[in-house]
Amino acid sequence: MVLRSSNIRPDMARLWSSLMRSAEIGRTAQGGLKRLALSEEDGEVRREFVRWCEEAGCTVQIDGIGNIFATRAGSDPDAKAVLVGSHLDTQIKGGRFDGILGVLAGLEVVRTLNDHDVTTRRPIVIVDWTNEEGARFEPPMIGSATFTGQKSLDFAYARADKDGVTLGQALDRIGFKGADRLSPDAFDSLFELHIEQGPKLDEAKRQVGIVTGAFSVRGIIVEVRGEVGHVGPTPMPKRKNAIVGAARVTLTIDDIGWSRHETGGKSTTMRLKVEPNLLGILPDLVEMTCDFRHPKAAVASGMLAAFEAEIPEIERRSGCTVTIKEQWSYGGMEYDPGCIALTRDAAEELGYSTMDLLTEAGHDAMHVADYLPTAMIFTPCEGGLSHNEAENVTLADIEPGVNVLLRSVLNRAGIA
Amino acid sequence: MVLRSSNIRPDMARLWSSLMRSAEIGRTAQGGLKRLALSEEDGEVRREFVRWCEEAGCTVQIDGIGNIFATRAGSDPDAKAVLVGSHLDTQIKGGRFDGILGVLAGLEVVRTLNDHDVTTRRPIVIVDWTNEEGARFEPPMIGSATFTGQKSLDFAYARADKDGVTLGQALDRIGFKGADRLSPDAFDSLFELHIEQGPKLDEAKRQVGIVTGAFSVRGIIVEVRGEVGHVGPTPMPKRKNAIVGAARVTLTIDDIGWSRHETGGKSTTMRLKVEPNLLGILPDLVEMTCDFRHPKAAVASGMLAAFEAEIPEIERRSGCTVTIKEQWSYGGMEYDPGCIALTRDAAEELGYSTMDLLTEAGHDAMHVADYLPTAMIFTPCEGGLSHNEAENVTLADIEPGVNVLLRSVLNRAGIA
Repeated sequence: MVLRSSNIRPDMARLWSSLMRSAEIGRTAQGGLKRLALSEEDGEVRREFVRWCEEAGCTVQIDGIGNIFATRAGSDPDAKAVLVGSHLDTQIKGGRFDGILGVLAGLEVVRTLNDHDVTTRRPIVIVDWTNEEGARFEPPMIGSATFTGQKSLDFAYARADKDGVTLGQALDRIGFKGADRLSPDAFDSLFELHIEQGPKLDEAKRQVGIVTGAFSVRGIIVEVRGEVGHVGPTPMPKRKNAIVGAARVTLTIDDIGWSRHETGGKSTTMRLKVEPNLLGILPDLVEMTCDFRHPKAAVASGMLAAFEAEIPEIERRSGCTVTIKEQWSYGGMEYDPGCIALTRDAAEELGYSTMDLLTEAGHDAMHVADYLPTAMIFTPCEGGLSHNEAENVTLADIEPGVNVLLRSVLNRAGIA
Repeated sequence: MVLRSSNIRPDMARLWSSLMRSAEIGRTAQGGLKRLALSEEDGEVRREFVRWCEEAGCTVQIDGIGNIFATRAGSDPDAKAVLVGSHLDTQIKGGRFDGILGVLAGLEVVRTLNDHDVTTRRPIVIVDWTNEEGARFEPPMIGSATFTGQKSLDFAYARADKDGVTLGQALDRIGFKGADRLSPDAFDSLFELHIEQGPKLDEAKRQVGIVTGAFSVRGIIVEVRGEVGHVGPTPMPKRKNAIVGAARVTLTIDDIGWSRHETGGKSTTMRLKVEPNLLGILPDLVEMTCDFRHPKAAVASGMLAAFEAEIPEIERRSGCTVTIKEQWSYGGMEYDPGCIALTRDAAEELGYSTMDLLTEAGHDAMHVADYLPTAMIFTPCEGGLSHNEAENVTLADIEPGVNVLLRSVLNRAGIA
């Protein structure tokens, strides 16, 4: 009998066991994970992951930014490898599955092929990207950005955390500044499995998300400048309270998201830095981190423009000056039709219910998609909750997605 | 000739010189002062102040909280002393006159009496209260509160700054934890000269503020609780962004101040603590420090009640829960009619234009007023600006107030 991919199923109990082992490393009192990029805990889970990969017969390479590549050899020495993976780092109060599922499902793909003694034509490479979350070093997704060359290693090394430790120093401390040089040229394609981090699959009771592309994101740093004064004697008409200006910015941005939410629009103020932020003082500075997201790039840009149009009115009503200090944008791309077709066909053959989705969060796959044929597969997650210690999935939630990943990767890699 | 107080004038150049010497200790690049309570700089200005007082023939005592009392003896061994002073500590970005003027004007009263070889019946005691500003240790005005017994020394010693240094440790470090025990029982009255910290005298071109009482203040700590989530995929209707809830609280509070501003009402959100305050995460907690101020106690309480009445609507619109975690109130008292009359008479005899005012900021005199006959005298300050490095007065702005202070204190102490 010719071995066909349809005969092969992952060992879900083994994958779950690996996920739960990961969930012990950096576990929080509330049962989530705090495993910031390149922390001691990240070092520990990386060593465990490397050990698992080597036990599964993989050759492990680590590049200058600490991305881990574990290669299961293929039969064709000239064939480029299929990448499969995500990230093992978490938010400060993160969940147990965000990113981790994609890496360990990649490991389970390799372990399953070993169980069945399957040799693929292309090598399969499990990848753990460094600092996906950006919770310790900004910008997020910097591991994939240096892999593709969008950011330089020097730029990445100089990023500092809130205590002034640079990313380069943190890599040295945990021993993960590697010497291997890898770039997209060496690879054929990328598949990233991830929990949805939103409620759509869970609410519609669909088993697999076929991710066809990404939301467009427009991010801004807004600076609201007022004037320091004494909260007691300064009359209302003389005040320039930067917190009041920031509140008007926040509600203006919130309204812009609400007015586009039926077509998927969202807008957020997520971070505030207030100065001097003291008892008895009218604050003169609030720095705000905000973004706008929409499936359509033109609408995302329109949301930002709608905010800019409101700035004079915010200034007039608060007495503060409001300036956009920094801007960035990402997303808006479509994933590779060939890779998407593999995931869609796999789900259909396996009889899973599916839903086409866009990714609304940032993912390393979005960086890689500009260089390699790429697809993402989503699993449901409970209530759509993520970046939260209560983030949760059941084994039954993820089994369809892992099967689709296995089959898609196997079909892309080819059975020798 | 019998010496009368009307013959005596302070040496304004000498006072200015002392103010400018003080302005060197903790001077900021912008020409203001950063001299946090019990810092090295506060220690330095205290030592300078003690030296000046001793040179002026005073006996210096330091109590357990570090309040400095410098006594110029009187002729009547049974007469209680007249207190005159304020504070030498500043805000993080403070001005050169807030508090400092009141202490050094007290010193100038003593120096002037020495110049003219005047002996008073009552002793005169210059006081520097510890940690008036509350910029390092909360609550503010803790020096006067332990003097009156409203707060215990143990409570005060345990207050910690943002680096975890306690007030008790800070006192030890600069050598100002004294052994002298002083209480209001030993004193007759208090006079505190201060810059207005508001624009009324400056705008009306009046020379002296006759302070008849204090605004009523209602302070609150508001806790806004939302839910952590991913800023990307979480749809608008599922969000509980605590920053959005806090923005609604801020604007509700701001509106309450605006709607009472013509009768002197003010309301402020001055400080925010956001968690987790990170890129990519919907924040689940904002802790807000806010207050309401009005000349009438009933209106101040009504402003707070008006805010409380709006909480359900804020919760409904933001999806967050809004709780008042802490409350405090102060102010609302009237100063002593006898002491006020002394300041009013002095200004009239000297031909100065005056305005009756309430103090809208907190002052140590407000604590002491519950225990001793007390009055405050305000000088104009440029544009009303205070708690700001650009805070400014001219010698001509303060000369009338210093003269009124000298004459009031002298009349209260009596010429022997």
